[in-house]
Amino acid sequence: MSEKNIPYKIYLNEDELPKVWHNIRADMKVKPAPLLNPGTREPMTAEELSHVFCDELVKQELDNTTHFIPIPDEIYKFYKMYRPSPLVRAYFLEDVLGTPAKIYYKFEGNNTSGSHKLNSAIAQAYYAKKQGLCGITTETGAGQWGTALSMACAYFKLDCKVFMVKVSYEQKPFRREVMRTYGASVTPSPSMETEIGRKILAEHPDTTGSLGCAISEAVEVAVKSEGYRYVLGSVLNQVLLHQSVVGLETKAALDKYSIKPDIIIGCAGGGSNLGGLIAPFMGEKLRGEADYRIIAVEPASCPSFTRGRYVYDFCDTGKATPLAKMYTLGSNFIPAPNHAGGLRYHGMSPILSQLYHDGYMEAVAVEQTSVFKAAEMFAKCEGILPAPESSHAIKVAVDEALKCKETGEEKTIVFGLTGTGYFDLVAYEKFHNGEMTDYIPTDEELAVGFAEIPEQ
Amino acid sequence: MSEKNIPYKIYLNEDELPKVWHNIRADMKVKPAPLLNPGTREPMTAEELSHVFCDELVKQELDNTTHFIPIPDEIYKFYKMYRPSPLVRAYFLEDVLGTPAKIYYKFEGNNTSGSHKLNSAIAQAYYAKKQGLCGITTETGAGQWGTALSMACAYFKLDCKVFMVKVSYEQKPFRREVMRTYGASVTPSPSMETEIGRKILAEHPDTTGSLGCAISEAVEVAVKSEGYRYVLGSVLNQVLLHQSVVGLETKAALDKYSIKPDIIIGCAGGGSNLGGLIAPFMGEKLRGEADYRIIAVEPASCPSFTRGRYVYDFCDTGKATPLAKMYTLGSNFIPAPNHAGGLRYHGMSPILSQLYHDGYMEAVAVEQTSVFKAAEMFAKCEGILPAPESSHAIKVAVDEALKCKETGEEKTIVFGLTGTGYFDLVAYEKFHNGEMTDYIPTDEELAVGFAEIPEQ
Repeated sequence: MSEKNIPYKIYLNEDELPKVWHNIRADMKVKPAPLLNPGTREPMTAEELSHVFCDELVKQELDNTTHFIPIPDEIYKFYKMYRPSPLVRAYFLEDVLGTPAKIYYKFEGNNTSGSHKLNSAIAQAYYAKKQGLCGITTETGAGQWGTALSMACAYFKLDCKVFMVKVSYEQKPFRREVMRTYGASVTPSPSMETEIGRKILAEHPDTTGSLGCAISEAVEVAVKSEGYRYVLGSVLNQVLLHQSVVGLETKAALDKYSIKPDIIIGCAGGGSNLGGLIAPFMGEKLRGEADYRIIAVEPASCPSFTRGRYVYDFCDTGKATPLAKMYTLGSNFIPAPNHAGGLRYHGMSPILSQLYHDGYMEAVAVEQTSVFKAAEMFAKCEGILPAPESSHAIKVAVDEALKCKETGEEKTIVFGLTGTGYFDLVAYEKFHNGEMTDYIPTDEELAVGFAEIPEQ
Repeated sequence: MSEKNIPYKIYLNEDELPKVWHNIRADMKVKPAPLLNPGTREPMTAEELSHVFCDELVKQELDNTTHFIPIPDEIYKFYKMYRPSPLVRAYFLEDVLGTPAKIYYKFEGNNTSGSHKLNSAIAQAYYAKKQGLCGITTETGAGQWGTALSMACAYFKLDCKVFMVKVSYEQKPFRREVMRTYGASVTPSPSMETEIGRKILAEHPDTTGSLGCAISEAVEVAVKSEGYRYVLGSVLNQVLLHQSVVGLETKAALDKYSIKPDIIIGCAGGGSNLGGLIAPFMGEKLRGEADYRIIAVEPASCPSFTRGRYVYDFCDTGKATPLAKMYTLGSNFIPAPNHAGGLRYHGMSPILSQLYHDGYMEAVAVEQTSVFKAAEMFAKCEGILPAPESSHAIKVAVDEALKCKETGEEKTIVFGLTGTGYFDLVAYEKFHNGEMTDYIPTDEELAVGFAEIPEQ
């Protein structure tokens, strides 16, 4: 197909919206390691998990073999509210870079949660509602997940309790207001409302909080409250499953124009966006049907892939969760306070960890001032102010496109633009004022986190 | 066409994007009254206007006869970055209301300026660039126009000086940061940087500012700076012309599915959104080819249509601009500080004023707490947090849909959802906290503004 026929934005028709989720585990010869009960070190059973998670989600969490899982009608209907999302050809960015590369991005920011997080939020809220629960609890870092879950809970009329990492709560008062608009309660974490919160505050009264700590609080409240379960916006297998809608749409849009990507790039905090974006492509790669370079981009200040250990670790700071085998910096690792935005989780999706470990993916760590520089350039030429998280992917997409400029290669680069930065203006302000700094933990600093990892 | 075949979101294909703007003046038997030189009371000549505005825009401002004006390629290319915008069937809202009405909204918020304002900003920046200018000056109230213009200027590498109404500048620090991201300078108005600003501050040191006052400052700087012109985001004929892209897309999307609207609703501050949305529909109405109810919605706190006078008045507080014949509250009218968001202009587009005067349109004034109530309901069911301005249209669309519920009529309602409320969370917070109040100026208060209107 001639280049000229490829529109700026490829929108699938509504009837082309994927009707199933793609379970990448079914394609994996080496499955991700199971969650372990930290007491017995035995794989967590469905029964054990059901105290924390909704029953149907437990089933999805443990299902390593079903290739495609139908998207229930109620979720499908909600998806139509904001999906399909556009796959955008970055013609303007290409011009500015003067690259022969062809750059596409899958833009997930055109909904009020401002990110891809809504794809899993609505699924998790649906299963909670279907189980007859009164409400769900969760944590949020940058605030995108909490906002998404608030929207989903408002839709299904479920109570929604959000523990928000304190530094984000303070930097992003407006995030809290959006969640309130959707009827959620938002508590800065660590808080005095939970045992673990009180314990953490006693030990570290000045802590700015972390995702791991907020998870501990949300899990505690879910387990202690009748009719509540806990939900998580990343890391888990079920979340990557729901996010596969991003990758399936991307692939369908590319296929429609017979475009084959060479490189697929996504930012990686807990891994939900990247895991979703790459699902069908990684499927082909695992089945030997196609080859792609797949690159995870993480912040240099929280480098779980590039400097973490691939071991069993707790998912939360309070060590209340099961053990997951993943690349981790230790469950008490907290990124330096100068780190702006999300991608501040100490661990990484067990699925992506296994794939990375097995050599199916690369990982790159980037520093935040370079990320904001790429973000600003992107905003100016593509007209979208990107979230700091998404901008990690922009940074590496730009780097790869510039390599193509040097070599003259016309590679096709696809990256995930997970969301918008409308609630990240404090960080942008710091960047404009020249007050933003970079931080790379020393080996000694990382050793403190590693010391907390349980014996294998 | 069966109801079921109408998708949630109607996206035109890229090749269906309008290639011309629709000049509604060509359809009007009674043309809008010309701008007058306040000294001579003679119609402003192109030469006189060219000191303030770009030459090509002056031509568009004065052109009452050309039906369709081609969209230049450079602008068309930029439009493709964020257009076509979706026409959304509000299935979720209809369900919640239990109405037999069919509700559609044209959503203009999916770009970083957050509103329809970009449609005219890019056009005005283009003509400034084409004329070889170094930069442009403008005012902004809620901040949408200033953001849009910053984006447009960044694209064409023009300097951009924005005077921002002081109350918005203080309530919306993040708006300022977005504009800075796009390289604009932003000054709270009234400021000490202009003669008129210093004069207004001397007389009213505690003023929270107004659009009329910010316009005066921006015009002063443009006229006094070599290589600069002034641009305006609403009111003017040229702006309505550019915004007709909204209406043309809306009509094309409706026609594609053989949908004929009964009622078309838009919020009205200076009139740019409403004037653009209704252009092709009003054209049919003026030519006697179709009939539509067309409703302008304005805030009760700034009721230019419903309580203003249809007379010649200044466009700015400093009385530096030409006189425009329009519905006006007097150029020194400043809405009460409790008024949240935009739609705070004392006057109204001369085109819309003439059409309203001639009975082609209705107008309704609504109070802001009822507007935010509608906004919150809409956010919960349609998944978009609307701008306060846009929510005026939502409020009346909901009212009309509820009337249909009473009568059982299956009317088709189309309204303009001009933008998102991501930078209006201070107002949402007030609403949630029960601190938002309504304000309806008394006749005595309005009389103060009317007293400033020049003799006719």
